[in-house]
Amino acid sequence: MSHPGERPNLPVSASRIAADIDKLAEITEPGRPWTRRAFSPLHREGRAWLADRFQAAGLETRIDASGNLIGRRAGRLPGSGTLMLGSHSDTVPDGGRFDGIAGVIAALEVARSLADAGIQLDHDLEIVDFLAEEVSIFGVSCIGSRGMAGVRPPEWLGRQAEGMTLAQGLVATGGREAPDPARQDIKAFLELHIEQGPVLETEKRDIGIVSAIAGIARIEIVIEGRADHAGTTPMGARRDALVAASKLVLGIEHLATDLSRQPRHFAATVGEFAMLPNAANVVPSNVRMLVDIRSEQRDDLDRFAAALNDLCISVAEKDHVDVSPRRISDAPAVRMDDGIGGMLANATESLGGSHRQLASGAGHDAAFMARISRAAMIFIPCLGGRSHAPEEFAENDDIAFGAAVLLETVRALDRQISE
Amino acid sequence: MSHPGERPNLPVSASRIAADIDKLAEITEPGRPWTRRAFSPLHREGRAWLADRFQAAGLETRIDASGNLIGRRAGRLPGSGTLMLGSHSDTVPDGGRFDGIAGVIAALEVARSLADAGIQLDHDLEIVDFLAEEVSIFGVSCIGSRGMAGVRPPEWLGRQAEGMTLAQGLVATGGREAPDPARQDIKAFLELHIEQGPVLETEKRDIGIVSAIAGIARIEIVIEGRADHAGTTPMGARRDALVAASKLVLGIEHLATDLSRQPRHFAATVGEFAMLPNAANVVPSNVRMLVDIRSEQRDDLDRFAAALNDLCISVAEKDHVDVSPRRISDAPAVRMDDGIGGMLANATESLGGSHRQLASGAGHDAAFMARISRAAMIFIPCLGGRSHAPEEFAENDDIAFGAAVLLETVRALDRQISE
Repeated sequence: MSHPGERPNLPVSASRIAADIDKLAEITEPGRPWTRRAFSPLHREGRAWLADRFQAAGLETRIDASGNLIGRRAGRLPGSGTLMLGSHSDTVPDGGRFDGIAGVIAALEVARSLADAGIQLDHDLEIVDFLAEEVSIFGVSCIGSRGMAGVRPPEWLGRQAEGMTLAQGLVATGGREAPDPARQDIKAFLELHIEQGPVLETEKRDIGIVSAIAGIARIEIVIEGRADHAGTTPMGARRDALVAASKLVLGIEHLATDLSRQPRHFAATVGEFAMLPNAANVVPSNVRMLVDIRSEQRDDLDRFAAALNDLCISVAEKDHVDVSPRRISDAPAVRMDDGIGGMLANATESLGGSHRQLASGAGHDAAFMARISRAAMIFIPCLGGRSHAPEEFAENDDIAFGAAVLLETVRALDRQISE
Repeated sequence: MSHPGERPNLPVSASRIAADIDKLAEITEPGRPWTRRAFSPLHREGRAWLADRFQAAGLETRIDASGNLIGRRAGRLPGSGTLMLGSHSDTVPDGGRFDGIAGVIAALEVARSLADAGIQLDHDLEIVDFLAEEVSIFGVSCIGSRGMAGVRPPEWLGRQAEGMTLAQGLVATGGREAPDPARQDIKAFLELHIEQGPVLETEKRDIGIVSAIAGIARIEIVIEGRADHAGTTPMGARRDALVAASKLVLGIEHLATDLSRQPRHFAATVGEFAMLPNAANVVPSNVRMLVDIRSEQRDDLDRFAAALNDLCISVAEKDHVDVSPRRISDAPAVRMDDGIGGMLANATESLGGSHRQLASGAGHDAAFMARISRAAMIFIPCLGGRSHAPEEFAENDDIAFGAAVLLETVRALDRQISE
């Protein structure tokens, strides 16, 4: 998606973005690029470096109660509200250099470009690095944006991992145990993110304007069979939990593939799978699997869950095992703001770029920000659609183009809201 | 299988057998019955108690270089060779009270009954508790019987587990690092064992005379797909290692069920299965599975392995993953001694019991003893065919009947070999 010849005069600095992303990438677990998990010393190191960059850009920098790093550029009209841009700087293990990071640095570059151009907005501008967007050591995600939106479950504070509670992790990050009230001043939230899928690259589009963030439901399935001697138990006399689980895995893949043939996003994945007793000469007695389901439309999730339930019943009967499915989480799909979406499209076109709408299969902080603010997202292309892997890659020119789209949209929003 | 009315005058003591098995069962990991794994302090505790019982029975007791506990009752004709009886006292984790133990105590009871009756055999009689028949912490099985037969691979001594090498584990058990030469003096080896399958119970037979110990082959299969974001990667663009692995599991089950319909033993089990990265929101990239294959006839194993190979190739192609099967072990089936089998049948009939031939799906120390001696095994019924599980159970009267069959057969063998 690199069109250097077509983008001679972007109102942002591509080289400044590249330098920042490269510098942040150096702060990684050695030998395990690119890993900088929330609540780790490396994450705090990256945060300290980011805070310096925020300050160097003239931003008034703080960490809020929910552990979010925020840089503020005051507007001309105090009390008129805030425009917020950002994403997250934490990664999954062996995660990417760009997932979240591109959005934080693009937001920072918007603030720098405004300063360079001597432009003061009417509204306050805030650049945010949300805490722990990825599933963290505490087993939960989007801790910072949930906190800012006032919807972080209070009981999460007691969660334990690596010898600390989430409350202690928050404090170590610079936050506080007691949450601030939900922010009421934010007029709009914009997030740039790599697509993490192959659509923009395949269709050669510069910008994806996110229509909705897919709902994420998780269904845990526990299969109880019977441990028997693998050498002596006749094939027909077994209650093999792995054989039953394999039927479920293939059934889930079949159901999801069917639903994904519609023109809206649907995907289901068995991402966690563990078996007991896991001994060479013992028939497997127990399997626990976790099904991750992403759906743009509620109906699709409901159809999938009903079909999966039927499948569990039939496998249990045929394989003489107990199968217990349980929905352990269910976050509904979140629509993005159509008005801002139109402005993002206009900005893309005015900068000479192409765009299309698409849904996000991944969850994002924007889904929680949508609870307290108008919220919108843009995607930029990434190589082969790869993400959450060391190979994740985005062209710097594509990030810079996205930053320019953000900048133009923020300026337009600032004028529109003031009117 | 309990026929108390029919067995008033067994030449062994059922109550003595029951007391010993109960006492040994008390030596278990608390809260995890019945666990007494080889190389653990509990195993040494059980061994010390057994050695006392051997000595109380008048046996000259020692531990050989390979870590086997041996009790000897000298024969009338020094140098004429040894008749050996026994099994093993180690268990799998959460293993049984009877698997191995019944054979050790039945053998001890034969020695006691001979002493009680004032009978001295022509040949030396040895009662043996083999070291580590079960797959041990070192990942290998039948360590003691392989050692006695001179076929324990020398490189095993360097295997490490729980902070020690196998060499150190042997020494801690009372054995030595340098093996003794293979025993040449053993004229016959007899082992009593629970069936670990449902045939004798279902057919109401007292004794199974083992025709052969099935061969055990292990095939490791590694499936390499690609880690992708579970939310954003379209269903059709995935290389999901778990989906591919599930097809293999079901294919293996189907092939094995087909082969098991013949009148000879065949079973295949995926007993080990592990997946990476095993994260809720990542498409699985890697699965390693271990297939355990038991076959009475070489042809069946060869047919299975060829069909599995074809399956690996077709799944790799269809699912765009790499599938690498590798045979990591292959112990051929071992026939038991037909002549002793006939004597065991005669002894069973003379004691008023019923019998049938059957193959052992499980591996046993007798398979290694067959390399240096005539070897034979009898099975006794067990409840529901359950084994390698806490529920494993055998009626004490059935064990006692089996011990009586051993006693009569040893006396007959002693006479036959002397002639």
